[in-house]
Amino acid sequence: MRSVQFTTETTSNGVVERDFTVGDVPGLLWSPASGADRAPLVLMGHGGGTHKRWPAMTGRAHLLVNACGFHVACIDAPGHGDRPRTAHDEQEIAALFEAREAGEPEGPIVVRYNAHLAKRAVPEWQATLDALQGLLEIGAEGPVGYFGLNMGTAIGVPFVAAEPRITAAVFGLHWPDALAGPAKRITVPIEFMLQWDDEHIPRAAGLALFDAFASKEKTLHANSGRHKELPRFEADSAVRFFARHFGRAVTSPA
Amino acid sequence: MRSVQFTTETTSNGVVERDFTVGDVPGLLWSPASGADRAPLVLMGHGGGTHKRWPAMTGRAHLLVNACGFHVACIDAPGHGDRPRTAHDEQEIAALFEAREAGEPEGPIVVRYNAHLAKRAVPEWQATLDALQGLLEIGAEGPVGYFGLNMGTAIGVPFVAAEPRITAAVFGLHWPDALAGPAKRITVPIEFMLQWDDEHIPRAAGLALFDAFASKEKTLHANSGRHKELPRFEADSAVRFFARHFGRAVTSPA
Repeated sequence: MRSVQFTTETTSNGVVERDFTVGDVPGLLWSPASGADRAPLVLMGHGGGTHKRWPAMTGRAHLLVNACGFHVACIDAPGHGDRPRTAHDEQEIAALFEAREAGEPEGPIVVRYNAHLAKRAVPEWQATLDALQGLLEIGAEGPVGYFGLNMGTAIGVPFVAAEPRITAAVFGLHWPDALAGPAKRITVPIEFMLQWDDEHIPRAAGLALFDAFASKEKTLHANSGRHKELPRFEADSAVRFFARHFGRAVTSPA
Repeated sequence: MRSVQFTTETTSNGVVERDFTVGDVPGLLWSPASGADRAPLVLMGHGGGTHKRWPAMTGRAHLLVNACGFHVACIDAPGHGDRPRTAHDEQEIAALFEAREAGEPEGPIVVRYNAHLAKRAVPEWQATLDALQGLLEIGAEGPVGYFGLNMGTAIGVPFVAAEPRITAAVFGLHWPDALAGPAKRITVPIEFMLQWDDEHIPRAAGLALFDAFASKEKTLHANSGRHKELPRFEADSAVRFFARHFGRAVTSPA
């Protein structure tokens, strides 16, 4: 098993942020600066075209650490952030930009490229989780959550379906084509976000993906607005979702 | 204008509960025992077959008062609680029980009876709001919310559509047949609750009602489970919804 190699460490607003690698996969680990006891871990998957240090990632990480004292980790997806792109990556990204330029639907390209990335990313996430659980402040017994929208859902759904250590997950904003199958094998509580006026994902497609999850407890949050208009308060809702399932009080307004 | 006539007053857990009447309509008003300054008002509509003092009503009222310092009021709907039933009420209630007994769909009876009750109830709510705004601790300037599920939605949707003083509302668990029309005239922020496995309200019917609201900001919370299995945490969510729109911090865990 590969271990976590830490490189840099900074502290801001009560949160310690550490760069790490597991093998050749770079990640970020956010933890309470107070040096909390062993605490639950939330893994975050970033969206397509972004990376582990994207503002949405650092913002959610700070919410989760400050409100609940969790550890939070995010790794760069294949071809994203500090990671090299393959020729196949370049080709798919070019196809996506061409479709966008031509005003053609992005869905078919996003669906197939994200499914390809998920195949590469799932074993990376598993190795990362193995390594993170080797840290004293996390350990192998605590609950583990997963939080990822857009491409973070495309990678997260097959990851959570394959990974019994994940006991609660927040997903959303993706198509059912490649994901309904693994979603049917997921039984842990989920919160799922959908944009009611999404210009890329047809409403029925988003609802079909939510419907596919076998989870006894699942909640759909559908908000008016277009694909990128997910309200900021849904990040607070995700924090409360993990707090509820991991038995932590929310100690700062979230 | 009729004024609020208070009868009994009790205090428990930081909440003053006062019985009142406006004309011949009996209601309950819950307020902070701390004697807060002028505060926003949330009107609550109860469900069919229940009344103003039903545990769901008193529970939600205590959450809203304790978490946000709001005033909260609920009145008995026509034919409910302390109010007399007409021959028509008796007839419709008998029809509902017969359908239930025979395993026939309740929807058509609930839809038509609730639409009838809404016609009687809307002017009562308007007179109640007029009178409550005459109280010093409420006043006519503060924001007013409406929170009602089931029959509370059947009455609340036409009420809110007709009432510009309501600036945010929580609805859910009803059919679109009689309500999609008035919902199309509602533009204030709404939160809408739907049970994904509702045995009475077809999923498409619940989604169609949510879709009908003209509100720029609207959020659907759909939870797995049957009609009566709405999770308790949705009451907390409604409290946060009103806190967000009325600019109040949630001061106790909600």
